Amino acid sequence: MPAISTTTPAAAPRVPDGGSASRQHTLRERNLRLVAAAVFEATAPPSRADVAAASGLTRATVSTLVDRLVAGGLVAELPPVAAQRAGRPAVPLVPAGRSVVGLGLEVNVDYLGVRALDLVGDVVAERVETGSLHDSDPREVLARLRALAAEAIAEVEAAGMRVAGARLALPGLVDARGARLEVAPNLGWSSLEPVPELDLRAGDGRALDVEVANEAKLAALAELAGDVPPSFLYVSGDVGVGAGIVVDRQLFLGERGWNGEIGHVVVDPSGPRCSCGASGCLEQYAGKEVLLRGSGLPTSAPVDAVVDLLRAGDVAALDTVRRGGRALGAALATFVNLVDVSTIVLGGAYVELYGWVGHVVAGVVEERALAAPFAPVDVRPAAAGKHAALTGGAREVLRSVVADPARWV
Amino acid sequence: MPAISTTTPAAAPRVPDGGSASRQHTLRERNLRLVAAAVFEATAPPSRADVAAASGLTRATVSTLVDRLVAGGLVAELPPVAAQRAGRPAVPLVPAGRSVVGLGLEVNVDYLGVRALDLVGDVVAERVETGSLHDSDPREVLARLRALAAEAIAEVEAAGMRVAGARLALPGLVDARGARLEVAPNLGWSSLEPVPELDLRAGDGRALDVEVANEAKLAALAELAGDVPPSFLYVSGDVGVGAGIVVDRQLFLGERGWNGEIGHVVVDPSGPRCSCGASGCLEQYAGKEVLLRGSGLPTSAPVDAVVDLLRAGDVAALDTVRRGGRALGAALATFVNLVDVSTIVLGGAYVELYGWVGHVVAGVVEERALAAPFAPVDVRPAAAGKHAALTGGAREVLRSVVADPARWV
Repeated sequence: MPAISTTTPAAAPRVPDGGSASRQHTLRERNLRLVAAAVFEATAPPSRADVAAASGLTRATVSTLVDRLVAGGLVAELPPVAAQRAGRPAVPLVPAGRSVVGLGLEVNVDYLGVRALDLVGDVVAERVETGSLHDSDPREVLARLRALAAEAIAEVEAAGMRVAGARLALPGLVDARGARLEVAPNLGWSSLEPVPELDLRAGDGRALDVEVANEAKLAALAELAGDVPPSFLYVSGDVGVGAGIVVDRQLFLGERGWNGEIGHVVVDPSGPRCSCGASGCLEQYAGKEVLLRGSGLPTSAPVDAVVDLLRAGDVAALDTVRRGGRALGAALATFVNLVDVSTIVLGGAYVELYGWVGHVVAGVVEERALAAPFAPVDVRPAAAGKHAALTGGAREVLRSVVADPARWV
Repeated sequence: MPAISTTTPAAAPRVPDGGSASRQHTLRERNLRLVAAAVFEATAPPSRADVAAASGLTRATVSTLVDRLVAGGLVAELPPVAAQRAGRPAVPLVPAGRSVVGLGLEVNVDYLGVRALDLVGDVVAERVETGSLHDSDPREVLARLRALAAEAIAEVEAAGMRVAGARLALPGLVDARGARLEVAPNLGWSSLEPVPELDLRAGDGRALDVEVANEAKLAALAELAGDVPPSFLYVSGDVGVGAGIVVDRQLFLGERGWNGEIGHVVVDPSGPRCSCGASGCLEQYAGKEVLLRGSGLPTSAPVDAVVDLLRAGDVAALDTVRRGGRALGAALATFVNLVDVSTIVLGGAYVELYGWVGHVVAGVVEERALAAPFAPVDVRPAAAGKHAALTGGAREVLRSVVADPARWV
């Protein structure tokens, strides 16, 4: 996995009206950001001279700031490379591994977990527990998550790493501030501020920065580590079906962060009743439990069990998954017509099922998306692997570190 | 109507790496932009001193730049107001009326037209021709539009005004660059670059800047002149049904500008066949011609005729419009769940029909939008009046003038 980058363009820093001391301070922070960005966004490890060229700063300024980033554990130096011309050999600069880490946390309907990523993008600790969390008690579940996270934190701190903060992924409507869960229907949770309840702390007792986000949106951001176009729709297929809209490598959040609820697109108003009160929602065709049940499996079975049946040519499984794929295609065609994105990334359970749903989805979208005749829609499986929201959450923490390195060095 | 403002935040200007002369030049242009913004965004007419305070520039610089904007016809001076303290009386500055104008052009399924707006927001010329343009010849129609525009241009130029450019609204998929129409199904137009065909010129033969845009999107922007929240969905009900997504007073365009195609949200897959090839699209329930036909009227009748029938309690009209309203509500609930916007503005034919469809739409949206239980969705009629895309287009031209005044003074 490539290193964390800061390609999300930051707003131009405003110079405050304060005294010249505070202006100096702000300028130093801005320059530190520029230098960090030059190292973290480079396609090949840059030298100090390369960073000076990329940032427009003098070599002396760059050297001081690079030294600070190296001392602070954000940037590492590779062995010097012999110079092509006379002079000192260049020292290639890279993101520092096993130094600062971000935590991704998640509570979903059938698992909870934590994943710690370092600035290189390596997983340096992970804990995942499976089991149904339908209609669970948030206090109890968040206490279990705190215990898992504490193990991961102890593990990385014992190895000399620092935890920069955490993102908690939840399968529901989360506000854009990242503080409040309005409702997570499949968990049975509502009107909750999970951060104080979670009360996550570093080994020395310091409270860690935690923000909450929708799981499909964090999973979408995990894709940015791979080879994905700058704009795409990410669909997370789990018990619920959620989506994240990425335009120019940025999450589009709508007015309050509550968008992407593709699971409740009505595919057929005469279809089965949904937990949301409507009838014929996508979740009733393409949600994980519906696919398991339709295949004659218990809802606690893993998706692999459906795949086994599909491989064996089981008619019920084939019919159920095909029907789910058609419904997903119809909902996605609507999504494409309303939002206009030309790449669809199928994540969560749809990754394992891709061989059976991919072409069905692509066919329906091609038929229904108005722009498809002159600009085909690309449908592909997600690349970020299992529990992608954990990776996306950890990456978001690290992105904020690189975007404002002065807080960490 | 309030004056044109530049509340759309412009990207921070990049200082080029060129020589200090070009840097000086860029700095002057930037300062001119700041001064224009301070006048056009003020809630009350500011004095030069107010502009200096708002822009952070010195009073001498501001005075020079204001003089330039006044001489160039972008800003006007009101009679001086006696100063509260000793000193020269303050001269309030306002956008200049009847000086620089923007043109909104439109070709829709049953009319074509042009509207000229000045910087105060006044309509200073207008031509609208009605008649069916279903499956029309683009060359012929654009020639008619050119003739109408030429009349309007001659009229405003005869009154001493200057035309800054034009925006052409079309009911179809237009690329984000504003050059190419991919398809306008109800016009029967496709794969077209209308700007060279239109070949719009000022009276002195100078070619005018013209950009093409989707009509619902320009109509959405027209709402920004009124008392509308910063984020909303605008739905334009005509023969087709289109939408514009405005978030923080900015159009959200998706990846290529082809979003908002709400007319082709499938409301019921067992519904009537649509021109797009799918079945049960919103247009087949809530498009203008469907509402006219269902009310027993010819498709060439005006929407007023439906309103007359509704007032008289005609059962067919009441049923048809209620059914259309329910379908519109269902499609909008999907839109709200996918995009997250809490205000819905019903435009086009839905303004006249609002008394009959408004509460129906609001009821369905309240039932189906996941966020509605804790954050009600506001459904309201559009305020920008008839042929709003003409107004929105003209405003866009003027916004670009105020955002880059150096080109015009």
